[in-house]
Amino acid sequence: MSATFDLWRERFERLRANKFFELTVITIIVISALLIGAKTYEETNRFQQWLLVMDVAITVFFLVEILIRMAAEKRLRDFFRRGWNVFDFLIVTASLVPMDDSEMVLLARLLRIFRVLRLVSIIPELRMLITALFKSIPRMGYVALLMFIIFYIYGAIGSFLFAEVDEFLWGNISISMLTLFRIATFEDWTDVMYATQELYAWSWIYYLTFIFLTAFVFLNMMIGIVLDVMQKENLLMELETGEGEAAEMQGLRRDVRELQGQLTRIEAMLEGDAGKRNLPAQDEPEGQ
Amino acid sequence: MSATFDLWRERFERLRANKFFELTVITIIVISALLIGAKTYEETNRFQQWLLVMDVAITVFFLVEILIRMAAEKRLRDFFRRGWNVFDFLIVTASLVPMDDSEMVLLARLLRIFRVLRLVSIIPELRMLITALFKSIPRMGYVALLMFIIFYIYGAIGSFLFAEVDEFLWGNISISMLTLFRIATFEDWTDVMYATQELYAWSWIYYLTFIFLTAFVFLNMMIGIVLDVMQKENLLMELETGEGEAAEMQGLRRDVRELQGQLTRIEAMLEGDAGKRNLPAQDEPEGQ
Amino acid sequence: MSATFDLWRERFERLRANKFFELTVITIIVISALLIGAKTYEETNRFQQWLLVMDVAITVFFLVEILIRMAAEKRLRDFFRRGWNVFDFLIVTASLVPMDDSEMVLLARLLRIFRVLRLVSIIPELRMLITALFKSIPRMGYVALLMFIIFYIYGAIGSFLFAEVDEFLWGNISISMLTLFRIATFEDWTDVMYATQELYAWSWIYYLTFIFLTAFVFLNMMIGIVLDVMQKENLLMELETGEGEAAEMQGLRRDVRELQGQLTRIEAMLEGDAGKRNLPAQDEPEGQ
Amino acid sequence: MSATFDLWRERFERLRANKFFELTVITIIVISALLIGAKTYEETNRFQQWLLVMDVAITVFFLVEILIRMAAEKRLRDFFRRGWNVFDFLIVTASLVPMDDSEMVLLARLLRIFRVLRLVSIIPELRMLITALFKSIPRMGYVALLMFIIFYIYGAIGSFLFAEVDEFLWGNISISMLTLFRIATFEDWTDVMYATQELYAWSWIYYLTFIFLTAFVFLNMMIGIVLDVMQKENLLMELETGEGEAAEMQGLRRDVRELQGQLTRIEAMLEGDAGKRNLPAQDEPEGQ
Repeated sequence: MSATFDLWRERFERLRANKFFELTVITIIVISALLIGAKTYEETNRFQQWLLVMDVAITVFFLVEILIRMAAEKRLRDFFRRGWNVFDFLIVTASLVPMDDSEMVLLARLLRIFRVLRLVSIIPELRMLITALFKSIPRMGYVALLMFIIFYIYGAIGSFLFAEVDEFLWGNISISMLTLFRIATFEDWTDVMYATQELYAWSWIYYLTFIFLTAFVFLNMMIGIVLDVMQKENLLMELETGEGEAAEMQGLRRDVRELQGQLTRIEAMLEGDAGKRNLPAQDEPEGQ
Repeated sequence: MSATFDLWRERFERLRANKFFELTVITIIVISALLIGAKTYEETNRFQQWLLVMDVAITVFFLVEILIRMAAEKRLRDFFRRGWNVFDFLIVTASLVPMDDSEMVLLARLLRIFRVLRLVSIIPELRMLITALFKSIPRMGYVALLMFIIFYIYGAIGSFLFAEVDEFLWGNISISMLTLFRIATFEDWTDVMYATQELYAWSWIYYLTFIFLTAFVFLNMMIGIVLDVMQKENLLMELETGEGEAAEMQGLRRDVRELQGQLTRIEAMLEGDAGKRNLPAQDEPEGQ
Repeated sequence: MSATFDLWRERFERLRANKFFELTVITIIVISALLIGAKTYEETNRFQQWLLVMDVAITVFFLVEILIRMAAEKRLRDFFRRGWNVFDFLIVTASLVPMDDSEMVLLARLLRIFRVLRLVSIIPELRMLITALFKSIPRMGYVALLMFIIFYIYGAIGSFLFAEVDEFLWGNISISMLTLFRIATFEDWTDVMYATQELYAWSWIYYLTFIFLTAFVFLNMMIGIVLDVMQKENLLMELETGEGEAAEMQGLRRDVRELQGQLTRIEAMLEGDAGKRNLPAQDEPEGQ
Repeated sequence: MSATFDLWRERFERLRANKFFELTVITIIVISALLIGAKTYEETNRFQQWLLVMDVAITVFFLVEILIRMAAEKRLRDFFRRGWNVFDFLIVTASLVPMDDSEMVLLARLLRIFRVLRLVSIIPELRMLITALFKSIPRMGYVALLMFIIFYIYGAIGSFLFAEVDEFLWGNISISMLTLFRIATFEDWTDVMYATQELYAWSWIYYLTFIFLTAFVFLNMMIGIVLDVMQKENLLMELETGEGEAAEMQGLRRDVRELQGQLTRIEAMLEGDAGKRNLPAQDEPEGQ
């Protein structure tokens, strides 16, 4: 039994590594994505039946594909060790949950959309891109916190002062922060300002300081990140080229040390030579 | 016959390389561009006749110019080997096709507009710029794919959820993606949000995550490209300056090796010398 | 008495350095921030009493906390020497001033908002960020002055020419400058332009030159800052790596000098040797 | 006579170099700027008389100031050699021309606004900034030309296709280019698009390709400029540090050559020594 299993595992492993199999999976993902897109068109109701069949077929295919990849691992635990596998597993199992309730149909559809994300997990270049993006998040952490504090303070001030002007824009602190985000994107911010200026003529100070502050922090963050990444790259490169040079230099110094050794031997020989012939007072020039 | 042809080919070659000829072509292109612009003014109807004559003259001139450049080549095949020549050929021949139909008049006009692009193919600096731009496209390829996936998923979600709110903005996935592009450019995005917020109060999450995601991917792409190009430049420069230094260092080591050779010879001589005089046990200092 | 005081000072110092104490302060700040946020919701009126108690408790806590930190210093003067301490002191004392007048309630609330800023003064990373931001201000000084001159000139021109078109947008120079800031953020700038174009058809020149000028100055400033910071970083790094290399090189030259010394000694010995055996005319090779 | 003139010239030269004089000029410029700003306020009509006196006083002061600076030069020709002097001279003389006509009053006012620009010519840091800005213009030349070609082609296409949709936005090529600039700034561009989409459903292609093209060219230009400037800086720095290292290296090689010379002499001495004692066959090791 175990031998048959091993045979099958090997076959699955070969299948998983197969370029053609990978291409098939990508094609199915793209078709599945197109299917999702197609469903958003009204006219697709005619193809309802056909689409449903396709959908079930794709769900089954994805299930089989992930089972093959799981079977190809020596131990199932290894499969779940890689984040991308867990990611795939969640997407596939989520679309298996039967949802017939009309409420649930929407959720089921949304879950099916995330199948498109499997493109990311299957194309190595995209996987690398995403990993790089995740790596750049912590670098932005404290700046994001600072930004949030600025938004919070301005949001509180805004809702205290302007709530009576426009309940819809400044009703409470969370609405105010959304309005401030709108202002930060320069989206019809003057309309917001002109409205509050009718009651508080000086309120342009509030908007201008906010815009300058966020723009200033944002720009500094951008410059900071560029410089940060660059510095690391430079350090790496300097180390690499520097190591080569340092090795060369070290080699050179070793050669020179050997020369010194040889010379000391020669000097000793000459002195011994001179000593043998009993020659006193060899006035050596020491004035160097 | 062949001699006459060669004579003419040589003449054409000289003409093609002529600075004055090039300047004439540029002038004609600019006039042709101005002509196209002039046609967009209502008042130009008075000059209709004159403009038509000009147009024919320019078409003929361009035809002659490209024939000259083709004749200047030793083999016609060489002419079509360079992409810019093919580009010019297509633009010139396209404006030759007679289009009298009122429907076709518009197409003929559009084709004539592309004559302005010949400015790009004739000015070397612009040609270089375009080549540089084309080179930077593949670098952006996978980021563009990632962006498309983000747009696709958000587009699908958007059209599933918000289609009933506003058919015009969220009708199907392609309309939704256009709306999302509008949101990515911050163009009246709050109007779109406020509309959907009436039905789904939490829909600000959809917009904010989308904006943050696209902005985040876009910024990382920008930083990535800047660093990528810079790294290549630095590597090139390091190699150049590094090579000079490495050569110097190698020369130095060779010199030091020669010194070692000389010293070994001297040592051997001294030892031989001592040996000749039968001096045993020259306790050489080895403590280096 | 002094001994008791010293004992207490030491205890306070230990308390101040305590990680748990710091965490408590951060928690209280966050709660205080949430409280401020909560007050902006209408429904919070029910919890009015409870919120008031919390507010008093937080005010007292902050007072005690700052008194502890002041007591922990050997001399009170040292406390006020660090800018961040002064900053904390001002925020805490400001919220102590009793304000019962309905007019003053708003001011009291605003002052309480600034308590959130204590997050910045207590988290070292945020403190560093703010210090870095302040350092980047002088670098922008003259560009800001130049920008202001551009805004002032365009503002004056705008209010001279367009005041009769729209009193609300171009009434006087300060309103004009606000309008220009709006144009610089591309906020519905075409509406402003179309309005003035009805009277002055050529007024698009005014807007386009302004946009190009500010964008151009802004971009150059950005590039300037990036390059400025990078240059400093590079210089620092070059110095560091350069110093290591220079030291190596110096060591090498010292070694080579010692070799020369040894050789000179050997040469002198050989010459002395030869001289002893009265050997004339040693035709030395001088052709180096 | 000439002696008295020289005496005065010297006095003027001293005055011109005087820090207090410079400060006075800056103060007057600022006051003049404030005056211009004040005139834009309706209420200033009461101070009309006072403002007029001030205006005349400032005009006279500027005239005297520029005459002093002209008199301070040894030859008048030297004064006009520096661009900034010509700039000051034009601004001052322009405000001297008497303009009483109501039409001319506006022009006179505009000319007076440019006095603020004298701040730029008098503060060295601003002068440097402007010079740097001017230097960065040619670098952008060909990209600007490319941008213009893109705008021209899209403008022509736009006015051919969309003129019947909205005469106001697409009437002729120049209006179309203004509309395209508006689209490039993302200013209500969807309104423009939705309008044309009613007639030409596919017109979103026109807008999206335009936005991508301009954004792409713009970004590449930005990156290009940053890299261009950085490369120059790096080259300069490499040269500087490189030269120091190269000199060190050269010194080292010279030292090693000297060592070789010494060794060759020693070898010759030893050979001569051996030769003197008639020792044949010194089997020298040649296998290096």
